[in-house]
Amino acid sequence: MKRSEVRQAQETTARMLSEHGMILTVEEQSRIEVADFGLNRLQQEGLELITYVNTDRYCAKELVLFPRQTCPEHLHPPVGSDPGKMETFRCRFGKVFLYVDGEASEDIQAAIPEGSEPYYTVRHEIELNPGEQYTIPPGTKHWFQAGDAGAIVSEFSSTSRDEFDIFTDPRIRRIPEITND
Amino acid sequence: MKRSEVRQAQETTARMLSEHGMILTVEEQSRIEVADFGLNRLQQEGLELITYVNTDRYCAKELVLFPRQTCPEHLHPPVGSDPGKMETFRCRFGKVFLYVDGEASEDIQAAIPEGSEPYYTVRHEIELNPGEQYTIPPGTKHWFQAGDAGAIVSEFSSTSRDEFDIFTDPRIRRIPEITND
Repeated sequence: MKRSEVRQAQETTARMLSEHGMILTVEEQSRIEVADFGLNRLQQEGLELITYVNTDRYCAKELVLFPRQTCPEHLHPPVGSDPGKMETFRCRFGKVFLYVDGEASEDIQAAIPEGSEPYYTVRHEIELNPGEQYTIPPGTKHWFQAGDAGAIVSEFSSTSRDEFDIFTDPRIRRIPEITND
Repeated sequence: MKRSEVRQAQETTARMLSEHGMILTVEEQSRIEVADFGLNRLQQEGLELITYVNTDRYCAKELVLFPRQTCPEHLHPPVGSDPGKMETFRCRFGKVFLYVDGEASEDIQAAIPEGSEPYYTVRHEIELNPGEQYTIPPGTKHWFQAGDAGAIVSEFSSTSRDEFDIFTDPRIRRIPEITND
């Protein structure tokens, strides 16, 4: 990703959050994480997030998805004595189509990103509207896509160790490379 | 507390939350907790809250304070192998004056509830405005009061076991008695 693209995504994210009652400090705005997972097509496969707190006991983040943006399939494995990250997604704005391990839903509402079809394998659909939430157990494969207006999701979880996440798509690099324009 | 007072406080709480982008389901609205701590003067000493999730690993709640309402001083002790609840308060709306163990601030901005002066002993002030947050370590005495417009506070924490909280005021009963009107 180019630095200008990161900056623009940060600005859009901060604006979406503030429009829906989620105020960030200036310091937080500057460290909004823009994840394109090394795939270089942020608007299709990507995620924007701000970590409010991440201690050895719990973690809280705000996740932002642009319209129809998709967070690729992954799971949180055990790390040492930790059984793996457990997380609760609470939809605050927009609509989220969440897919987890389990019986495949007949017709899914998300559109799987073109060219990445082999790497979206779970099909059990949960639709989350504002005020609705879902808790994902450790070790559960999952991916999610925003509806047409994008989405804001509060994530409450155990300790977050993103560097250990296991993605289905072998092309993915969790920590992005940023180049000057 | 009378049942009608509880119901009215629940309605005010749900309205304050929805006005600031925090949507609750109908089921959640019906289980908003109205805590008067057994003191029977909710508007002075009390707290409204909704627990989104409370697992053996983490907990998330939304706290609502009416204008100048005060949550009385307490601490979260160790329980079994748990070193005690650790919690992060993130102000979403309004203003919160938070007091914790530590060097007393010279002039505090909160007004200590009349008649309860002996039970508010810590005076180290932290002012939280929207977007600002503070993490309270386990075993730390703390109390807090909203500013003139009330406040909404997201609480991210380790597992919550309210029944073990230790309040400074011996008159306090954490689980309220509710009587029919």
